[in-house]
Amino acid sequence: MKEFETTYPDDNYTVHVGHGIFKETLNLYTSRYEDVFYIIDENVHHAFKTTALKDIEDPVITRPGEAAKTAEAFIGIVESLLERGIKRSSLVVVIGGGAAGDAGGFAAAVTLRGVDFIQVPTTLLAHDSAIGGKTAINSRHGKNLIGAFHRPSGVIYDLDFLSTLPESEILSGFGEVYKHALLDSEKAARDLMEQTAHGVKAADLEDSLIKGIRTKMRYVTEDEFESGSRKYLNLGHTLGHAIEYEYKIQHGHAVMLGLYAMMFISNEQSESRIFDLESHHTYFSNLGYPMELLGTLDPGRMLKHMKHDKKNISDASVGFILMDKDFEPFFTEISTDEMVKYIGALKESL
Amino acid sequence: MKEFETTYPDDNYTVHVGHGIFKETLNLYTSRYEDVFYIIDENVHHAFKTTALKDIEDPVITRPGEAAKTAEAFIGIVESLLERGIKRSSLVVVIGGGAAGDAGGFAAAVTLRGVDFIQVPTTLLAHDSAIGGKTAINSRHGKNLIGAFHRPSGVIYDLDFLSTLPESEILSGFGEVYKHALLDSEKAARDLMEQTAHGVKAADLEDSLIKGIRTKMRYVTEDEFESGSRKYLNLGHTLGHAIEYEYKIQHGHAVMLGLYAMMFISNEQSESRIFDLESHHTYFSNLGYPMELLGTLDPGRMLKHMKHDKKNISDASVGFILMDKDFEPFFTEISTDEMVKYIGALKESL
Repeated sequence: MKEFETTYPDDNYTVHVGHGIFKETLNLYTSRYEDVFYIIDENVHHAFKTTALKDIEDPVITRPGEAAKTAEAFIGIVESLLERGIKRSSLVVVIGGGAAGDAGGFAAAVTLRGVDFIQVPTTLLAHDSAIGGKTAINSRHGKNLIGAFHRPSGVIYDLDFLSTLPESEILSGFGEVYKHALLDSEKAARDLMEQTAHGVKAADLEDSLIKGIRTKMRYVTEDEFESGSRKYLNLGHTLGHAIEYEYKIQHGHAVMLGLYAMMFISNEQSESRIFDLESHHTYFSNLGYPMELLGTLDPGRMLKHMKHDKKNISDASVGFILMDKDFEPFFTEISTDEMVKYIGALKESL
Repeated sequence: MKEFETTYPDDNYTVHVGHGIFKETLNLYTSRYEDVFYIIDENVHHAFKTTALKDIEDPVITRPGEAAKTAEAFIGIVESLLERGIKRSSLVVVIGGGAAGDAGGFAAAVTLRGVDFIQVPTTLLAHDSAIGGKTAINSRHGKNLIGAFHRPSGVIYDLDFLSTLPESEILSGFGEVYKHALLDSEKAARDLMEQTAHGVKAADLEDSLIKGIRTKMRYVTEDEFESGSRKYLNLGHTLGHAIEYEYKIQHGHAVMLGLYAMMFISNEQSESRIFDLESHHTYFSNLGYPMELLGTLDPGRMLKHMKHDKKNISDASVGFILMDKDFEPFFTEISTDEMVKYIGALKESL
């Protein structure tokens, strides 16, 4: 098992990563609390209820995936915790993918104005979302627009949970793994690209996952409330979220399309060839990402969705993360006119 | 105008109190923000839309009173803010009584994971709830069980808003004024009792209100997250909330009945006569509080409601604030058996 500790001034927590670590590691935490309440994604519960999760009594079961993040489903989770008699001194353990973690973490944040919670991510994608204390549900007006910053008391990432993931879920999670490699270094991104040139298998990704976790931890510790460098983690996400919202595709798939658009715009704006677009296009297509959707983007609708992204603070422009020639991310404001132009050029380039 | 500044280590805010101060004081805050969004209680909007509130465009109107604090109404407020294009850099101004402040403040806490907000309390009761950063909505299982700690950026208490309050609302607010006097000193409580022996008028209460605000500020600054002395502000509230929930009466009315029960139990437990129960009973009855309800309390149902109160951390007992012979509040655990006995004795004593 590997363990990484956050480096905030106080209230630090540990991220545990390994195989078959769930039960024993969780016990280190639950033994400190009088009451423990479990929130588990329906699919995860179904897959592991006779094995890893067999001792858990009366969990709150969430609807699978993003369905857990509607306002109605969320209120249901909170009311279920209260119905079971949760107290301020209780512990909540959230077991599931990114969506369960987001909704369950937000439930822990607002039930009784905040109780302690542990994140137990069970997907590749959740290696990202389980770390950093961002919790949220979706609004009618966009993803993750209602939420709270609420640090977990610990993150237990048992890689054995990844074993039952469908291929599309692995592919979705790989979007964030690849983003973290880009943020890490040009070499890390190139190595990962070579390693996965013939397909993505969860078992091969452990090193990259652990690197990704460290990259994520570095950014969220530096800037917990996203007033500065944490924004770089939105690499690929501004347009990615808009694509996800418009086409209802999986998060990581949309992020990967967003990363490609980011590469295109970074090249355009710098008037240089930071990214080899052709090889990336081939690579992403071969892995199975729906690159063809980029050819159908409606700039007006994309802008409308991007406006609802909470990081976009002005009406006349869109806050966007690009990468420079030194492979460093930077924040910039792209005017809506320019954005329409970039999306048009991107479509033509395909 | 009087101004009081909180004394937290950082992020302090000012409480402004006076007559006719709303517009000018608010302007000091709004001028610092690009966008300002208003959340206004329906009744307050109706009463002041042609006067104090006439320049406010497109406010989010909340259902009057506690109706604003259902999960559904709350989600409606948040979605309305998002629909209007709120950004992280925006300011929210919440204008209304305690319920609007609680729900509107919680909306500000979770919209985009938190935006700045100003409390503009318009009732007597809200002199209490607008200060201290506690925000919440109600659960099916009890009052204020879903919420957040979210400090306002300022509190503007324009006493002119009190002019249109119905008598029952004044009486309800007086419950908290009286509680603050009890927490202040024996003399403060006695003086207030004498001053209001023939009825409660908002205009006569300004000094007591300002004292109450200072008392509240002292407690919430000392212990923002209620791990210690802030609990004393729950004086009269543990049983009061249960009474409010059971009989659906106004908050301050229930608190006053809860304060009477607290006096009774304080006397019983100390085996002394800290409070003159007879004169308090006469005083509260004469003012119009429904003291007769205390004769109908069902101990089992009261305990059930109290169990759901988030401050009550154990199953076998109820956390309760009493007062000692030196007129100092203290926290104690009362076993459920004892509580049944006290409620029985209270009913007999009436």
